[in-house]
Amino acid sequence: MSKIPQRRTSRDIRSDSRLEVLHAVLSARETTRSAIAQATGLSAATVVTIVGELIDEGIIAETKVTIGRVGRPTATVGMNSDRGRVVGIDVAETYVRAVMFDTALNRIGYVEGARDEHVLDPDSIVDGIGAVLDRLLAQEDGARERVLGVGLSLPGLVQGPRGVAAVVVPNWEWRSVELDHLRERVGLPLVIDNPLKAMVAAELWLGRGRSASSMVTVNLGTGVGAGIVLEGTVLRGATNSAGEWGHSLLMLDGRLCRCGRRGCVEAYVGVPGIHQTLRELAPRHPLAEVELQADFITSLAKAAAGPDPDPAARDTVARTAYYLGSALADLVAVVNPEVVTLTGWTTWALGDQLVPEALERLRTESPAGAGGSVQLEVSTVGGNSVATGMAITALERFLVDAGLLTTRIPVAL
Amino acid sequence: MSKIPQRRTSRDIRSDSRLEVLHAVLSARETTRSAIAQATGLSAATVVTIVGELIDEGIIAETKVTIGRVGRPTATVGMNSDRGRVVGIDVAETYVRAVMFDTALNRIGYVEGARDEHVLDPDSIVDGIGAVLDRLLAQEDGARERVLGVGLSLPGLVQGPRGVAAVVVPNWEWRSVELDHLRERVGLPLVIDNPLKAMVAAELWLGRGRSASSMVTVNLGTGVGAGIVLEGTVLRGATNSAGEWGHSLLMLDGRLCRCGRRGCVEAYVGVPGIHQTLRELAPRHPLAEVELQADFITSLAKAAAGPDPDPAARDTVARTAYYLGSALADLVAVVNPEVVTLTGWTTWALGDQLVPEALERLRTESPAGAGGSVQLEVSTVGGNSVATGMAITALERFLVDAGLLTTRIPVAL
Repeated sequence: MSKIPQRRTSRDIRSDSRLEVLHAVLSARETTRSAIAQATGLSAATVVTIVGELIDEGIIAETKVTIGRVGRPTATVGMNSDRGRVVGIDVAETYVRAVMFDTALNRIGYVEGARDEHVLDPDSIVDGIGAVLDRLLAQEDGARERVLGVGLSLPGLVQGPRGVAAVVVPNWEWRSVELDHLRERVGLPLVIDNPLKAMVAAELWLGRGRSASSMVTVNLGTGVGAGIVLEGTVLRGATNSAGEWGHSLLMLDGRLCRCGRRGCVEAYVGVPGIHQTLRELAPRHPLAEVELQADFITSLAKAAAGPDPDPAARDTVARTAYYLGSALADLVAVVNPEVVTLTGWTTWALGDQLVPEALERLRTESPAGAGGSVQLEVSTVGGNSVATGMAITALERFLVDAGLLTTRIPVAL
Repeated sequence: MSKIPQRRTSRDIRSDSRLEVLHAVLSARETTRSAIAQATGLSAATVVTIVGELIDEGIIAETKVTIGRVGRPTATVGMNSDRGRVVGIDVAETYVRAVMFDTALNRIGYVEGARDEHVLDPDSIVDGIGAVLDRLLAQEDGARERVLGVGLSLPGLVQGPRGVAAVVVPNWEWRSVELDHLRERVGLPLVIDNPLKAMVAAELWLGRGRSASSMVTVNLGTGVGAGIVLEGTVLRGATNSAGEWGHSLLMLDGRLCRCGRRGCVEAYVGVPGIHQTLRELAPRHPLAEVELQADFITSLAKAAAGPDPDPAARDTVARTAYYLGSALADLVAVVNPEVVTLTGWTTWALGDQLVPEALERLRTESPAGAGGSVQLEVSTVGGNSVATGMAITALERFLVDAGLLTTRIPVAL
């Protein structure tokens, strides 16, 4: 492949500065120009200019002006929640969830629809997405005109050739699907990415990414994966496929993974993997028979907690923490982040029980240079961080179209 | 840790452009300004300016002027080998090797000294380095005045706090060693880094990094590790410890590694690991008794090659390729590079035998999005790429001091 330099320009630098100002405003909710300068390290003059640009675009607004006894009046600024709406859509294996946010990233409402995981043809999936979006727009009265953009996450999306609006989703055997139908059906500015990138966008804007420049965000659910931020930039990889830590090896020739390979991390710390661990430890345990994944994880968390835990449940959690810490140590060895955050529905149910033992194992198993200071935390970005991240990506895209940012968004339709 | 933005400036952008021009000149050996513009995508005017700056600094030179029948005369430019010398020093576990290059990165000469791997106190190590450097300078008559800088690789070097010239080498239990003694002993501009970063600098300037923007370079020797380049930038990690793939897991609770943990990649594809594989397959094989690692690898390569290979040797190579491909698949899953190159002395002996089967396993074991197009190649940067890379790093440092580059060099003394 010939190398096409992705050269950075002074426009990119201004874009970075605007993004930093936005993050500072979002983080503080209400702040002043001088506090922004302090938080970002930008000069006061630069901050004044950028705040002006963002106010002109209606993304931030002056919230109040305080006139002190001496000196000039001080204005505070905050995100302008009235600029419009953005929607994030998480197309998962068994559901489609669409979440609406205002432009201050407050959640307005959501709609979820079931998906038959065996139906993978593009038309059916597009119809499912369209139906959920329609319901959301109907639910939030008169919202369509106010929606600045929609961000859509597709599981395992790979970046197509640059500039081609066709998508590759290996799990669905979508080799190069053109989504004209989707664009028409949505009828709003649309951007798509994969769940790992969405998740990391949420962590960058709303979570630990605001204070750590190298960070890994790990999603724990049916599947598992990692979103990676290095020196403030999301790692995409050569084909937008970076972060597939769930299908890296924990155990050569180990458990069969649903991807068809053996020994993947996901086969141990994905929910079906945790279920298998319990069945190995206690084949006749009542929890071994629970059918729905979500019920299993909730029941496991309950049984393993408290002063007098169920021994098999407790051992399952301990074993899972051992697997998780071991597998995270590989990520830490290769990427050497400051912090690892955990997200996803397994985390919401079981994260607090997993973290202490997983962290101990992580520190023991990482090479000294990387593991000594690494932190492991439950993410503070609650809820469906994939939908949140895609809404943020849609907002970024709006700011790109407004000429304020140069962030590269992988696939825009 | 509070986030101190490493903001990029327009100076960084000029620096990047200069580096691209330098790489284009180095790559072509002799080229023209218009060919550089074509190769880099920079404007003709920018190339003319930058070539002028690099000629002023004496790093490149006009090689000849061709006067055609029509149009203006065309000048060709090349690296100026007479600008001075740079030295790269590889401090490995059992030897110290210092290699001298001219400023066109042609190798002038080298000296190697043995090291007792049990002697780890800073003074002894500094004396060993100084002695080898002295011998090299004596060997290359009158060279000291011409040396622009020395680059030194220390195994497992971790970045200390920014701006503090103290180094952390966990393997040697150096927690925060100040190297005033070393600086005085060397008496020349000095920069230090770890072998993985050195290796990747060599690949960036002289090998596959010139055409691939996302790349992993894997070192195979006694130890193993990975140098990672993402979108043209070397991945350092939060504490300069990224790339410790050799101590990521291949097999949970597997073979004991010399780092004290179990199941590390290195315990399977490092030379002692390959030796163990042979002993497991054929305990009474004559190769099982070979004591020196280098002899073992050379003999193994010879025995496994040809139309009528020794079965145990052949099986050992096949098993090693299986381990290597599996372990590389983890890197590919997480980082998603365009290409993986192999370097190090195991590669020089055995690489051509390992690549076909390792690549097959790598493609099978990587997630579809990342593994489909990834390439695996023996590096074209021959010899000791750690010493070469540190000489390049010393040259980069010289260009930083001359105000031409802004590349961050981790520890300069």
